[in-house]
Amino acid sequence: MQNRTRIEDLKNRIGETVTLAGWVDVRRDHGQLIFFDLRDGSGKVQLVVGPGPVHETADKLRPEWVIEVIGQIKKRPEKMVNSEIANGDLEVEVGEIKILNQAETPPFDLQTDGRELAEEIRLEYRYLDLRRPRLQQNLHFRHRLVKFIRDYLSERGFIEVETPILSQTTPEGARDYLVPSRLQPGQFYALPQSPQQYKQLLMVAGVEKYFQIARCFRDEDTRGDRQPEFTQLDLEMAFVEQEEVMILNETLLIALVKELLPGKKILQTPFPRLTYREAMDEYGSDRPDLRPNKNDSQTLAFCWITDFPFFEKTETGAWTFTHNPFSAPKPEFMEQLLKGEKIGEIITSQYDIVLNGSEIGGGSIRNHRPEALRAVFRILGYDAAAIARNFGHLLQALARGAPPHGGIAWGLDRLVSILAGEPNIREVIAFPKTGEGRDLLMGAPAAVTPEQLKELKLKIDSR
Amino acid sequence: MQNRTRIEDLKNRIGETVTLAGWVDVRRDHGQLIFFDLRDGSGKVQLVVGPGPVHETADKLRPEWVIEVIGQIKKRPEKMVNSEIANGDLEVEVGEIKILNQAETPPFDLQTDGRELAEEIRLEYRYLDLRRPRLQQNLHFRHRLVKFIRDYLSERGFIEVETPILSQTTPEGARDYLVPSRLQPGQFYALPQSPQQYKQLLMVAGVEKYFQIARCFRDEDTRGDRQPEFTQLDLEMAFVEQEEVMILNETLLIALVKELLPGKKILQTPFPRLTYREAMDEYGSDRPDLRPNKNDSQTLAFCWITDFPFFEKTETGAWTFTHNPFSAPKPEFMEQLLKGEKIGEIITSQYDIVLNGSEIGGGSIRNHRPEALRAVFRILGYDAAAIARNFGHLLQALARGAPPHGGIAWGLDRLVSILAGEPNIREVIAFPKTGEGRDLLMGAPAAVTPEQLKELKLKIDSR
Repeated sequence: MQNRTRIEDLKNRIGETVTLAGWVDVRRDHGQLIFFDLRDGSGKVQLVVGPGPVHETADKLRPEWVIEVIGQIKKRPEKMVNSEIANGDLEVEVGEIKILNQAETPPFDLQTDGRELAEEIRLEYRYLDLRRPRLQQNLHFRHRLVKFIRDYLSERGFIEVETPILSQTTPEGARDYLVPSRLQPGQFYALPQSPQQYKQLLMVAGVEKYFQIARCFRDEDTRGDRQPEFTQLDLEMAFVEQEEVMILNETLLIALVKELLPGKKILQTPFPRLTYREAMDEYGSDRPDLRPNKNDSQTLAFCWITDFPFFEKTETGAWTFTHNPFSAPKPEFMEQLLKGEKIGEIITSQYDIVLNGSEIGGGSIRNHRPEALRAVFRILGYDAAAIARNFGHLLQALARGAPPHGGIAWGLDRLVSILAGEPNIREVIAFPKTGEGRDLLMGAPAAVTPEQLKELKLKIDSR
Repeated sequence: MQNRTRIEDLKNRIGETVTLAGWVDVRRDHGQLIFFDLRDGSGKVQLVVGPGPVHETADKLRPEWVIEVIGQIKKRPEKMVNSEIANGDLEVEVGEIKILNQAETPPFDLQTDGRELAEEIRLEYRYLDLRRPRLQQNLHFRHRLVKFIRDYLSERGFIEVETPILSQTTPEGARDYLVPSRLQPGQFYALPQSPQQYKQLLMVAGVEKYFQIARCFRDEDTRGDRQPEFTQLDLEMAFVEQEEVMILNETLLIALVKELLPGKKILQTPFPRLTYREAMDEYGSDRPDLRPNKNDSQTLAFCWITDFPFFEKTETGAWTFTHNPFSAPKPEFMEQLLKGEKIGEIITSQYDIVLNGSEIGGGSIRNHRPEALRAVFRILGYDAAAIARNFGHLLQALARGAPPHGGIAWGLDRLVSILAGEPNIREVIAFPKTGEGRDLLMGAPAAVTPEQLKELKLKIDSR
């Protein structure tokens, strides 16, 4: 439809005859006249069908049918003008209607914001649910936000590098999703919990400024507002110290809010910085919400939390890492780490960024010397063989000329949901899964055929 | 290192004292003087160390060690100027050296282009292999190309939408990779062979202009120059006809070449268009290389191939699709499709884009009416129950107000490799797998623990 006009472009073309296409929205009959709104990706406009041959076609139209119309753009009579809405001062007098597709009656009302519905039915009919202006806006906002990040980083010399999804299992605090290999029966790929190791390998490879909008996967029991797959802004820089990574991220966030959400106010810049100890003492949380009024969605209170303990004791008395095993300690604790002394007092170079009480990102300077990383794994209880098996490739790489490096990862779904004023991340993901990890639209996960299992040399063990 | 100067910025700062950081490259000793190149992400420069305390440190340096140096930028003596290379007219007189990391001797020479090596060793030490300027350039070129596409489409009203990786099995011509669900034992996700169904659902959802740089997965036997995971530019538009999709893609490709590869010449614009019949009759191939000289890598011969048969017979005499089961026939063949008559003569709306003898993309106008898509599946031999089971969600969506739509997918790895003058796609992928699907760097796929299998309720069936 090369001569199609989008609805947002109608306002400057009063008097012209145009071709429009879209979905039938609300319909109002007034005897001889049929009024209905036509909706396309750019907006809505009121159509008017008077008596005549086209009236018969218009009479058949039902909500969500897809049509093409030819009509003349007119100013509405003065008393019909609605200045509250876009195109409220005009209407299109319809000359022709072509039905492009009919639609069954939707299973729910598309004129609401959808929040009154059980989420299951919204997810099952996600292709209808997404037609709501709110969700369309969320998809567009997410696109613009990610585009802004990409532009900002690219202008500053970063390159985006795609890292593998079919990868190897790594201990990053959650279970891996596994993918059986058909060509190597009995062996499995793992989906990455993050591109952490790949981005460190890119630093060793001489890529000095890396980023990626990266898909990550975690097989967790209690998901709450999490998803089996989620999206990170993943970022890493060579030859940097903690301060430079923090400043880059802070200026990016400030620029992003200014450009995309000029109506919102950042409570304080530079972002306040609290040590873990200060945050716990003053707010009882390492994700404090610094807003004076917690319900004020127009205010954005960013802050940094630093100086976390590197290790903590598990219930069994073993040491585990609090954030990221690949982090370096703060420089003044390197000796303690290497010697394995006063382990509970070692402070990591980790820095978390918090927005309105939610952690939206975290990063650190990494242990770029193999002996220091080995010391971490020893404290975590790995013996030499287990270290070699799980981290041999990374330790080898660090022994072959690794620059000092550090970075961060943002939880992009969370950031978008907070900035969009949405209560959970499913509202800013096109096709989210349920809390049980089900895709109700596609029906995944699902049974597979015996032939598929046989090819993978797998049996289901239903004991 | 906030006061670090990148090597590409040295040329305008003759006489200044700067801090540099990077890798020790080639080293040449001349008695009292040590010459070596320092390499960072932006280039190389020659360092000179004279007699004095720093000489002792410099003497220890070996290739690929990571160092920080402070030195003064000087013009080289006239007879030492090398005008063939960047920074060939200057050198840095080193005052201080700090060793940031040592490096074991690399397992292969990093001064060559690497083509003389067995690929296995390059992939095992990919973090070294990637330090070669050729591969660095490939990563940077790929970034710029993808960025150009994103900018171009975003400016034209497209939005990028992320679609799921943990998805449902679909019959798109290859085997799916499966992911066992732990929470639903005995059930599996499938990794998408393409976002085809999701992008069609987005069209039904009212997203009129969609694109995505999308990861796709196919579990194939003979891979040749293929990878288990690969990247597509995936694109779909609502309310379009074939011509509009082709024109958009053609103008994008022309703009991309002009911007990124001004030295290359596109053989013919508008791109020649050949029907499948013409291509086979004239060139014996539906991927003809139209270059007069097949070895001329500076000439880019794009062409479109259209009017493919929709169906072809398999060895068993059943009908299969030649390209994409979701395509619409050309409008004049819709009656035949619906009636299932003269099936072998039905022409699909498929259009393939070919560059120098390689297919770099393909797309079609889709069957947006459920009865027409159902007719395709009937011809392919699915009974009503199988159609409902495999495609029920998409057919339901098409019955709820689907706009006419069409799109395309580009094989991005292939396009980048051809434009970069590389013989295979592994040269333009940061961490590729071998032909057998192995990641030699990370050691994937690999055995997993009995506990992991037990949690998934799976047994390996080694019969």
